[in-house]
Amino acid sequence: MIDLNIVLFDGFETLDALGPAEIFGKLQDEYTLNYISINGGSIISSQQLSVNTVAFAEIDDTGILLIPGGIGTRKLVNDSEFISELKRLANKAPYVLTVCTGSALLARTDLLSGKRATTNKVAFEWASSNGLDVKWAKKARWVVDGKYYTSSGVSAGMDMALGFISDINGNETAVAVARGIEYIWNTDARNDPFALE
Amino acid sequence: MIDLNIVLFDGFETLDALGPAEIFGKLQDEYTLNYISINGGSIISSQQLSVNTVAFAEIDDTGILLIPGGIGTRKLVNDSEFISELKRLANKAPYVLTVCTGSALLARTDLLSGKRATTNKVAFEWASSNGLDVKWAKKARWVVDGKYYTSSGVSAGMDMALGFISDINGNETAVAVARGIEYIWNTDARNDPFALE
Repeated sequence: MIDLNIVLFDGFETLDALGPAEIFGKLQDEYTLNYISINGGSIISSQQLSVNTVAFAEIDDTGILLIPGGIGTRKLVNDSEFISELKRLANKAPYVLTVCTGSALLARTDLLSGKRATTNKVAFEWASSNGLDVKWAKKARWVVDGKYYTSSGVSAGMDMALGFISDINGNETAVAVARGIEYIWNTDARNDPFALE
Repeated sequence: MIDLNIVLFDGFETLDALGPAEIFGKLQDEYTLNYISINGGSIISSQQLSVNTVAFAEIDDTGILLIPGGIGTRKLVNDSEFISELKRLANKAPYVLTVCTGSALLARTDLLSGKRATTNKVAFEWASSNGLDVKWAKKARWVVDGKYYTSSGVSAGMDMALGFISDINGNETAVAVARGIEYIWNTDARNDPFALE
């Protein structure tokens, strides 16, 4: 049993966070889901969803970290307190998963430096500008480099989450989860229909 | 501009509600998203997500209604007050969309009687038992009958939401939304990889 700590902030993209939450939530004997924000309290997504969260300080920081993207990242990349706290959590986490422009936040912690990563393709230029020494993949549904899993835009986070579960819990488990939620899983991390090149 | 009223209840399936919310939320000039529950307040999903909602009584009941499924439906199908309130909203709504076992709740209002509908395939027997005079489709990603859109399990709700947008707002709009969230849209309502037959 391990914690999955899902980082939320005002202007997070709903599906970036909650697509993977749906998937990990199907393995309740393996993962405990926590919805967290820097100060706790209610957080509003870009789709007007109000979610109650617990503060970073209150969680078990040895859990897996999931970082969504969204319009809120545009401001947060320049929020040194947030980035510093995110770096502390990411350093302790056994795995860090990002979706969409969540990779821009992680890049700002410098933990992706020299590593392969991807991000969404619509905002690729902006996102990748947050980590000039990251090896950004222009064609990838998701990328794994050590403990870092980074995915392409929004929906790609679900494919990555299943890919992570396949790596950690076994492919049969991932296939069963996808089937249980009737999800047509794009199993190939290299199959990126939205690639820039 | 029209309201999309998303019905939440304890034990709703996260992605049933929030996959479509992601999609409709991309058309902020067309749809206003409201997260509602019978009495308002915080509601907990099956994936431990705590969402703040407004009460049924407080909303504009002429909006489109979206009804997710989830384990919470097992109890609610026998909650006559809830079903009665749901029927009131569904009667007024110009369109009613259900995802997964959300169709079991709608079937209990009798509004699906004699109509074609679908539901998820894993819990097909239970869900369909809630509407013996509904023409349940065993093979369909989603089904449209008049103002009622019913989808198969969990992830199928996203394909249906895009199908609805294609019908109402035009196919180009739906394609653009899918592309914006890098979603590999299963555009064919008849293409159901999880069909029972």
